[in-house]
Amino acid sequence: MTESPETDSSARVRDIFRRQRVMETFGATLTAVSTEGVEIRMLYREDLTQQHGFLHAGIVSTILDSACGLAALAHMPANANVLAIEYKINFVSPAKGDTFIARGRVVKAGRTISVCSGNVFSVTNGEEKLAATMISTMMTVINHDAKD
Amino acid sequence: MTESPETDSSARVRDIFRRQRVMETFGATLTAVSTEGVEIRMLYREDLTQQHGFLHAGIVSTILDSACGLAALAHMPANANVLAIEYKINFVSPAKGDTFIARGRVVKAGRTISVCSGNVFSVTNGEEKLAATMISTMMTVINHDAKD
Amino acid sequence: MTESPETDSSARVRDIFRRQRVMETFGATLTAVSTEGVEIRMLYREDLTQQHGFLHAGIVSTILDSACGLAALAHMPANANVLAIEYKINFVSPAKGDTFIARGRVVKAGRTISVCSGNVFSVTNGEEKLAATMISTMMTVINHDAKD
Amino acid sequence: MTESPETDSSARVRDIFRRQRVMETFGATLTAVSTEGVEIRMLYREDLTQQHGFLHAGIVSTILDSACGLAALAHMPANANVLAIEYKINFVSPAKGDTFIARGRVVKAGRTISVCSGNVFSVTNGEEKLAATMISTMMTVINHDAKD
Repeated sequence: MTESPETDSSARVRDIFRRQRVMETFGATLTAVSTEGVEIRMLYREDLTQQHGFLHAGIVSTILDSACGLAALAHMPANANVLAIEYKINFVSPAKGDTFIARGRVVKAGRTISVCSGNVFSVTNGEEKLAATMISTMMTVINHDAKD
Repeated sequence: MTESPETDSSARVRDIFRRQRVMETFGATLTAVSTEGVEIRMLYREDLTQQHGFLHAGIVSTILDSACGLAALAHMPANANVLAIEYKINFVSPAKGDTFIARGRVVKAGRTISVCSGNVFSVTNGEEKLAATMISTMMTVINHDAKD
Repeated sequence: MTESPETDSSARVRDIFRRQRVMETFGATLTAVSTEGVEIRMLYREDLTQQHGFLHAGIVSTILDSACGLAALAHMPANANVLAIEYKINFVSPAKGDTFIARGRVVKAGRTISVCSGNVFSVTNGEEKLAATMISTMMTVINHDAKD
Repeated sequence: MTESPETDSSARVRDIFRRQRVMETFGATLTAVSTEGVEIRMLYREDLTQQHGFLHAGIVSTILDSACGLAALAHMPANANVLAIEYKINFVSPAKGDTFIARGRVVKAGRTISVCSGNVFSVTNGEEKLAATMISTMMTVINHDAKD
């Protein structure tokens, strides 16, 4: 019984997500994984806010950076890991709501360098509002010792 | 007995820092405040790491965004608050160490828009190593209801 | 006989484009204008290249920054002008081709701050290839002396 | 008679600068080269302006991207070329003046990825004013066919 490459790739994404301790700490969950993109959700947490009671810009960035990085990973070979080189993020509305959804996708998957883009939406009573938009640059790091 | 404007400005920075719940959650402390810049420190926290056990890029961004924003605030009028419009951050070495120091300063303080830059250093046994560098854009938001 | 607001807005965009001397110098043309977005095209120019004979990254940026800025302007009031605060651009493939198309659109139109995104495509024999992608921040500057 | 590595590196920077046709077109000159950084100057050109008669943001970016890229090149091995992956630039004052000076330097020289920062100053009657500030990411591209 063999799995499809797509399924393998999703399994690797889920595995790396699980190893990101900060995701568990934030109570974030991985709600969609495919080569089309990755989605991460988290509930509002008062203990992660800035001075106005909104989610801190850095927390918004954390889930979006992970969504973009994992979207890039889904396009990489099985023995690769992903490293964030840099990102740029614009905050277009306050991060207030009951839930936050980060969606990342790959703009260009290169051998060494991949470019991703993504958005975070604040959700209030089921209505999504764009909170932030990002472009990020990811690097493929080949693990030459990987047994899998 | 009156306080100097400098002291007032530092007091406002300390007040906004205290209201950022995420700083308390991370155990971050405000270790320097002046119009020359703002410094925030935090200890390594395993519960805020990515898959390699390094501090997650978004956590590095969180303390540096706050350091830059508060550096901008120190230049703003007494009834102003500061809002991050956007930032860009490059990660130049893994965020591993026992302590992390974020230092933010103002490149240009404008009436509406301020531009800041800052760095995060990983500290291991007292030795600092550049981990990340940021440029950010902050907006002055005047609170017309402010009583102070 | 009155013009629609849409037409007025397009006329202002065309007027500002005409006043950008660099567009004439580059032989760039404004090929689409609406509140949906702005498109600028230019032919390959050997005198604007970098060391490999590709269009220089800064030239790619120039037409894309203009496309994004004009897209933002199309959403602004009649007495407003647009000012680029900052942008971030990723280069995803070499800018080689016979023609280059910059397409800018508004992600969020705010009263003071607008966020735009855009792409440049290299065109070879009619086939478009993504060359660069940008997020930019624009500021609305009200001209209080404007007679129109 | 042998040249020092430093001199070799400067010669390569000067050679690549000469091959950037756009620099000649803009009348830009390379006024300083060392591993400490690279400086490029150009005079005000009305044919490269935006709607207010200031140098277009993209032209400011062009000379600064070259200054940063060449600063990175100065740290690379002899058979390497430099490729701009991305940059982010903030415009802090209008690009008006008689002369413009772009200064780029390396923040972190890596084997594959280098991070640079730089500034453009507008000069009026000898007085420099900060016009723009950039962070850029450069990639080392090894030319395996290089004879030198």
